[in-house]
Amino acid sequence: MAEPQKKDLLQEVTDETRADARKLIEGSRSASLATLDPGTGHPMCSRTGLATDQQGRPVFLMSSLSGHHAALVSDPRASMLIGEPGSGDPLAYERISISGVAAQVVDETDRAAVREAYLAKHPKSKLYIDFKDFTFWRLNPERAGYVVGFGKAYLLSASDLDI
Amino acid sequence: MAEPQKKDLLQEVTDETRADARKLIEGSRSASLATLDPGTGHPMCSRTGLATDQQGRPVFLMSSLSGHHAALVSDPRASMLIGEPGSGDPLAYERISISGVAAQVVDETDRAAVREAYLAKHPKSKLYIDFKDFTFWRLNPERAGYVVGFGKAYLLSASDLDI
Repeated sequence: MAEPQKKDLLQEVTDETRADARKLIEGSRSASLATLDPGTGHPMCSRTGLATDQQGRPVFLMSSLSGHHAALVSDPRASMLIGEPGSGDPLAYERISISGVAAQVVDETDRAAVREAYLAKHPKSKLYIDFKDFTFWRLNPERAGYVVGFGKAYLLSASDLDI
Repeated sequence: MAEPQKKDLLQEVTDETRADARKLIEGSRSASLATLDPGTGHPMCSRTGLATDQQGRPVFLMSSLSGHHAALVSDPRASMLIGEPGSGDPLAYERISISGVAAQVVDETDRAAVREAYLAKHPKSKLYIDFKDFTFWRLNPERAGYVVGFGKAYLLSASDLDI
């Protein structure tokens, strides 16, 4: 799970919270991806480009040459941190940690839609998006920790993130 | 480990590489932290404020109320992704994934120096830096993946990161 663990510190989730969380995810173009090293189980953290599918779920593109690809093939459990800090205190900026299970996008219709969404958000990815070693993946959220500022946090369920 | 896993894709590490990597770490004010959920071993990804100690190692401040604090108390293995993307392709920006073991800064002299370094980089943290639930931690690097642009990556050892 994500940041705050003490339930009494969590705020009540409202429709506004859900809308703000979805807006953050849909408005972001990159994510930090936590996976597990296949050999040791050591946590790994790397950067991915980010887009969302029609249900607002995170989708991303990976080369089979990358370490996080090997990690997710071995164990698909992952967490994505979305939301970049600006100037001043980095902990004052909203971010969401989505915990879930990643899966390659294999269905051709699904893949075509995801490819279009990704390309719309990352026009420069056209340089490599169709390379044979690249595949699209989706993070299927199980829950998320949404922090909107210092000490102000929400625990969201998968259904809270449904669009 | 971090991103590229195929050794033949890695660039040769030079003194310039080492200097650039250290500059990126020392110039950054936040990091994405990958840890392991104490109950399930699921990877977790969260944001921390970042500073460096006199040896250039990452130091950070955590509340004992945070999920990543509970995670590191249970299993200190961690990975830190440092380097924020800007506009355009997020994968074109340099970033470093440092893999290592975290440890709380307990020695009083050590802690005073780390506190000073953190406060210099995060003046607004004076609002909470001395709260009783906050402790300083250090990531002792074991190795790092340093990506300076699309398909251009280095594997750094702990000694490559020594200052």
